[in-house]
Amino acid sequence: MRDVWIRGAAMTRFGKHVDRSARDMVEEAVAGALRDAGVEAPDVQVVYVGNAAAGLISGQESIRGQVALRRTGLLGVPIVNVENADASSSTALHLGWQAVASGMHDRVLVLGYEKLDHVDVARSFRAANATMDLTELADVFGPGAGHERSVLMDLYGARSAVDGAERFGRELLAEVSVKNHYNASLNPNAHRQQALTADQVLASRVVAGPLTRLMCAPFSDGAACLVLSADRDRRAAADAVGIAASVLRSGHGDDESGPFGVIAAIREAYELAGAGPEDLDVVELHDATAAGELLIYERLGLCPDGTAEELVRERATWLGGRLPVNPSGGLIARGHPMGATGAAQVVELVWQLRGRCGARQVPSARVALAHNIGGWVGTDVASVCIHVLSK
Amino acid sequence: MRDVWIRGAAMTRFGKHVDRSARDMVEEAVAGALRDAGVEAPDVQVVYVGNAAAGLISGQESIRGQVALRRTGLLGVPIVNVENADASSSTALHLGWQAVASGMHDRVLVLGYEKLDHVDVARSFRAANATMDLTELADVFGPGAGHERSVLMDLYGARSAVDGAERFGRELLAEVSVKNHYNASLNPNAHRQQALTADQVLASRVVAGPLTRLMCAPFSDGAACLVLSADRDRRAAADAVGIAASVLRSGHGDDESGPFGVIAAIREAYELAGAGPEDLDVVELHDATAAGELLIYERLGLCPDGTAEELVRERATWLGGRLPVNPSGGLIARGHPMGATGAAQVVELVWQLRGRCGARQVPSARVALAHNIGGWVGTDVASVCIHVLSK
Repeated sequence: MRDVWIRGAAMTRFGKHVDRSARDMVEEAVAGALRDAGVEAPDVQVVYVGNAAAGLISGQESIRGQVALRRTGLLGVPIVNVENADASSSTALHLGWQAVASGMHDRVLVLGYEKLDHVDVARSFRAANATMDLTELADVFGPGAGHERSVLMDLYGARSAVDGAERFGRELLAEVSVKNHYNASLNPNAHRQQALTADQVLASRVVAGPLTRLMCAPFSDGAACLVLSADRDRRAAADAVGIAASVLRSGHGDDESGPFGVIAAIREAYELAGAGPEDLDVVELHDATAAGELLIYERLGLCPDGTAEELVRERATWLGGRLPVNPSGGLIARGHPMGATGAAQVVELVWQLRGRCGARQVPSARVALAHNIGGWVGTDVASVCIHVLSK
Repeated sequence: MRDVWIRGAAMTRFGKHVDRSARDMVEEAVAGALRDAGVEAPDVQVVYVGNAAAGLISGQESIRGQVALRRTGLLGVPIVNVENADASSSTALHLGWQAVASGMHDRVLVLGYEKLDHVDVARSFRAANATMDLTELADVFGPGAGHERSVLMDLYGARSAVDGAERFGRELLAEVSVKNHYNASLNPNAHRQQALTADQVLASRVVAGPLTRLMCAPFSDGAACLVLSADRDRRAAADAVGIAASVLRSGHGDDESGPFGVIAAIREAYELAGAGPEDLDVVELHDATAAGELLIYERLGLCPDGTAEELVRERATWLGGRLPVNPSGGLIARGHPMGATGAAQVVELVWQLRGRCGARQVPSARVALAHNIGGWVGTDVASVCIHVLSK
């Protein structure tokens, strides 16, 4: 397998962009990534596009990438439209990595985008719900079946999120959210750029169990783009970031001991990268909720099982701590435009490894991990995608 | 690049399957392809799923493959959900071919499926329309813009189909449709299994210009599945079919001389396969209309430009002719469940190369070509995917 380099990285600000179309955001991200890479559109050999919701939001299914990229000069080469719920664009990145690592292509563009905002808010919810197995939902709501919220929560992993949240308690969860909002206040591309106090987080509307609105990721709009290459760009050798591991798995669905796919994927990623959690300098992970961030600390091996609380008490995952997590603000505060999230995590890590993150910079970062999950089949995640980057 | 073999091929009957769910059809095709390949589900290392319309038909976006495959034992490995309009499952096959050819994976499952039937017929049409650039459609219908049918037809390639149809005349078009319906009458997996006379085709409802309903592909439901492998199955060496070329392109969008993507893709496919049109024994091509079949004869170089009529007069593309085209019945008569069509073309060709097609068998077929296109951006196809197979 060949080395794969990320030569270009760019993203729009995430947010509720009522006045921007998907195409408009895509064009900004694509132009930025090409410019950053020093690559012209005609040099790109294949494009992988991740998007989760355009079909249900705008009705534009089937050829989303071609439509969104129509004015970029990228049409002509293969355009592959990929969908994997919240992990859509990390899945696209996995395919892009394969294309370069295998020697199939030398210059690859990876795009993630999402326009979740819609005047008919029910549409945005319908699109988000489509990341779950709807036939199962139909079974639950079918004649004779119970409609209890607890059944739904068990089906869709919400139970484990709330159980997890209850384990940690609301004050601890609020601290995680305060951290991510503080980080986002240093990130001009974040959706929520206002630093918050724990009291503010705790005072926001309750969503489920101890989780409040400001402990959960918002619906966002945005686009993020990466340009991959088989060769380092000599003009910018100091900026070269390599992909040390790229792993995709789907949920197993029948493993009693937990989300098999996630554990197997993480093990495989560390093995491929020849690195372990102790080697990481910075992490972007899938904090759909503050409880999720804490559970994933343990899943990734950032601390022994059952000790996530200690990382918070020690401020280990804060900027300035031993291993900063979600310096961008994470899903909770940078925002969560589903199909753009995976690529945006990697954009942040590329910028961190280049040392260009200003006030939120993790000093001397050399090894980084991105953890992105998407969708539910039963109590298992439908997809998990892990990338390890190094410079 | 390594050789890639198609070890397993299976499909459901195509048709209007009011009583069958997408999952039900998927399970039949997957079980059939695994059995045919002599491969167990746990041996599959990656799955590529092509589907075009599930999001708009059923609301199930984002994790379509995981949901459809949930009971097949295939979850756990990477599942990549791919969308490229009518070329969705040939795009999935292209990715599967890359995965094996590049040495990334040894055993790959490729699935195409579509459930287009819906009690709300408008949904089926909405899903089919999503293969076009809807922002452009919105522009046309915007304030001050003309709503003329001719504008729409120009935008979406319908003009070229109708112009083409007018060039050929209704009698010639009817003959193509008679051929494809006759072939489908010999195919137990076809949607329309009734042989027709030219009078019957001509007497059916007019759709546009000289095109009648029986000259156009119907909405169908169905699933088709392929198992790819890096090694020939020794138990069935006589059945081994190899992929000699796999090419994907997107429409160019600004080429004056015609659909650039198509021409470039075909040239590349012949080059990769080390074969030309003169080497082909059997072809499955994208006859969304009878006029399309004739235009594609010329595009593929099966005859010199401007002479497609002669192939019909000579019955060259009939069963028993020099180069049978669409022995399955093609999109017009085997049916056209969008996301399943590309895989189904290849299933038919695998069966042809194995010599197992009974009454519709092309004798001693050794080299075959599948031509699948999907969607429109302006007057260009959004995606084209060509596969050359050989035994």
